[in-house]
Amino acid sequence: MQKILIFGAGKSSIYLIEYLLKSALEKHREIIVADLQLENAVQKVKNHPAGKAVEVAIEEKEGRRKLIAQANLVISMLPAFMHPLIAKDCLDLGKHFFTASYESDELRKWKSEIESKQLLFLNECGLDPGIDHMSAMQIIDSEKKKGHEILAFKSFTGGVLAPESENNPWKYKFTWNPRNVVLAGQGMSRFIRNGKYKYVPYHMLFRRLEKIHFEEVGEFEGYPNRDSLAYRAVYGLENIPTLLRGTLRRAGFCRSWDVFVQLGMTDDTFEMNLPEGFTYREFINAFLPYHESSQVEEKIRELLPWVDNEIIGKLEWLGILANQPMAKLKGSPASLLQNLLEKKWALQPEDKDMIVMQHIFEVKTPKGIKSITSSLVSEGEDQEYTAMAKTVGLPLAITVDLFLDGLIQATGLKIPISPEFYEPILQKLKEEGIVFNEISELKKA
Amino acid sequence: MQKILIFGAGKSSIYLIEYLLKSALEKHREIIVADLQLENAVQKVKNHPAGKAVEVAIEEKEGRRKLIAQANLVISMLPAFMHPLIAKDCLDLGKHFFTASYESDELRKWKSEIESKQLLFLNECGLDPGIDHMSAMQIIDSEKKKGHEILAFKSFTGGVLAPESENNPWKYKFTWNPRNVVLAGQGMSRFIRNGKYKYVPYHMLFRRLEKIHFEEVGEFEGYPNRDSLAYRAVYGLENIPTLLRGTLRRAGFCRSWDVFVQLGMTDDTFEMNLPEGFTYREFINAFLPYHESSQVEEKIRELLPWVDNEIIGKLEWLGILANQPMAKLKGSPASLLQNLLEKKWALQPEDKDMIVMQHIFEVKTPKGIKSITSSLVSEGEDQEYTAMAKTVGLPLAITVDLFLDGLIQATGLKIPISPEFYEPILQKLKEEGIVFNEISELKKA
Repeated sequence: MQKILIFGAGKSSIYLIEYLLKSALEKHREIIVADLQLENAVQKVKNHPAGKAVEVAIEEKEGRRKLIAQANLVISMLPAFMHPLIAKDCLDLGKHFFTASYESDELRKWKSEIESKQLLFLNECGLDPGIDHMSAMQIIDSEKKKGHEILAFKSFTGGVLAPESENNPWKYKFTWNPRNVVLAGQGMSRFIRNGKYKYVPYHMLFRRLEKIHFEEVGEFEGYPNRDSLAYRAVYGLENIPTLLRGTLRRAGFCRSWDVFVQLGMTDDTFEMNLPEGFTYREFINAFLPYHESSQVEEKIRELLPWVDNEIIGKLEWLGILANQPMAKLKGSPASLLQNLLEKKWALQPEDKDMIVMQHIFEVKTPKGIKSITSSLVSEGEDQEYTAMAKTVGLPLAITVDLFLDGLIQATGLKIPISPEFYEPILQKLKEEGIVFNEISELKKA
Repeated sequence: MQKILIFGAGKSSIYLIEYLLKSALEKHREIIVADLQLENAVQKVKNHPAGKAVEVAIEEKEGRRKLIAQANLVISMLPAFMHPLIAKDCLDLGKHFFTASYESDELRKWKSEIESKQLLFLNECGLDPGIDHMSAMQIIDSEKKKGHEILAFKSFTGGVLAPESENNPWKYKFTWNPRNVVLAGQGMSRFIRNGKYKYVPYHMLFRRLEKIHFEEVGEFEGYPNRDSLAYRAVYGLENIPTLLRGTLRRAGFCRSWDVFVQLGMTDDTFEMNLPEGFTYREFINAFLPYHESSQVEEKIRELLPWVDNEIIGKLEWLGILANQPMAKLKGSPASLLQNLLEKKWALQPEDKDMIVMQHIFEVKTPKGIKSITSSLVSEGEDQEYTAMAKTVGLPLAITVDLFLDGLIQATGLKIPISPEFYEPILQKLKEEGIVFNEISELKKA
């Protein structure tokens, strides 16, 4: 009997667990789901005969190692900073290790030991990173095999609302970690365009947008996402003139969000400690210049010339212009803003989320320049069966299944960028309804 | 014989050392100047019979402690991060300890031990912090004593060029640590104005200017400097409606400097590694949006609408628009920019620096609102005898002299904000030509 140990039974592990449970009896596997709260694990396992829910205090080495020792393979769905802890145990105890998170420097230190023990430590096998890598590499390898040169590669991903749930002025709600959304884009974003390095500081980011169109779901906008330059090596595109990775939001979102960025309200570097009764209107006013008589709205318009009635309307809808005492008074500006947004941008029971991803390639062929647009749209079913959980969890579940079936035989410290990973995984994802729609067009003869 | 040990014989210690040497023989004192490089110490001591130059490897505990053990009192002119090391030795060995740097959390931990050993550990006794505290507290205490209420206090300081040396388009050269100048203002600046908390993010800082006028030297502009709110407690002005500390630059400087800030070229959070032959023009272009045909100058004007011919001229003068290979290719954007600026903004042998400081108070008196403007202008003599070295070093030298003469008898962990410090120190500074010009005006009857 093969034992799969899953750490973390949070929202995003529902598809992962169900996929593995589905074939577990037939394949003689046991799926052990371990969470800080037993209840979470029990809910996900749903009394399945091949499943087992256990409570685990991650920090307690002995209990944790005991669990790991009895498993063949470990999947960590815990917050990324906890992965090295689990990974070290797996290394010591000779267990394979899988995550949907970025490969970390800690893990890289153990690279040769992982190899020599013939273990597979696979990271970046979720959505982004994960599906983005696999779907991109499939096109890149295929074009390279034809002898074509890839001139440009832009890749955008977003976790957004399904169109039917876009029922607030922002057309946005939190479908993923709110803190990550509020802090998104901080630091310097970097990419290369037509051979020119480009660096975009945070306060300029939400103006450097690309319009992205999806046939099924309409118009989005993408802003550059952190260090695209690093992906030249990852994707084997060292000399590509244009490479950009970005984040998608519904068209029109960024110019409104930029108000908070410009005012400094997404700052997370210092703690405010506001007096009792401080209002949301006073909060936003604290980031505006002093004026004897001008109203907050006037000052916003004066400082940020693109602000129009629509944007002011969105701010009003959030309640940030209201003479209403703040619910939270202590914390960074970002955390105080987040506290308000979490109420206003909360998913309702009937809401559905959506994942949108688009790769845009320009490829030099003997017949001319070919553009390839490969798009993925995945809608959630409800608040439990979300598109986010599906697209993060299924690649991981499928990969583990293929690996235990012997259909993937790689070992070492890996991310799924080679055909032996992406071919069978993308095929299985297709069967689960995660399908890219590819349009190819020859631009010049 | 009293022995004074001075760590650090860099540029800023020349006045400090000379002041203490002047009266050393008469007062039976020996001034031991210790530096990493013996040469530095020898240069400053100038064979004075009461002086002694020694070489010291600060990190070597034994040699350092041996030096400290024979002294009565230690002054550290080393970089601030080294102070706790020296301070701990002084505490262990029962020596008084003086610096011109901010009181640090490390030192605060030893507060009660310093007190119980009846030592004086005095920090913030230079220019800013130092003279700013003392001159402000003299006015604050005097107004409070008269029963007046202080409604507003703004305080600005700048290390700039003497007007006669303002012979480049920027009217600026580095008269102080270039790295600190390039990074100045990063983070969130905070102050209070008419009872309203105000927070200014870095990318908005160089537009939030106050015009400051000096009778002798004309127009300057001040931008908010870090956390002014913390000074309410320091100055005993807990309920003051307006408190702002700021940094002065020559009028017109900030709107030009803001170009670099807006583009992200002062970022210090990541390393660039540019290819051989990369030009300054390509460097600035890397922070501008891509355009097929627009020139760098056009793109700057389009992105930053306030940029006019004057600003473009200043950029040209710096060479940042030139097709010239960069001298340094590896480092953060800030460090690459700094490398260029250090050449262009280098002080010439004939150049003189200048310190400008201005306190502006509004005080409620029975006769109406009184405004008090207290200004200090101090010009350097040459590149060695700079205004910066004078205003940083003399307060420290004078204080040590007064302390050893028994005219200051405080002990404990202190900054010079009480009359027993500021009265005699400001009097002695006046004798050295560091004089505030105070103008008082009754605004309303």
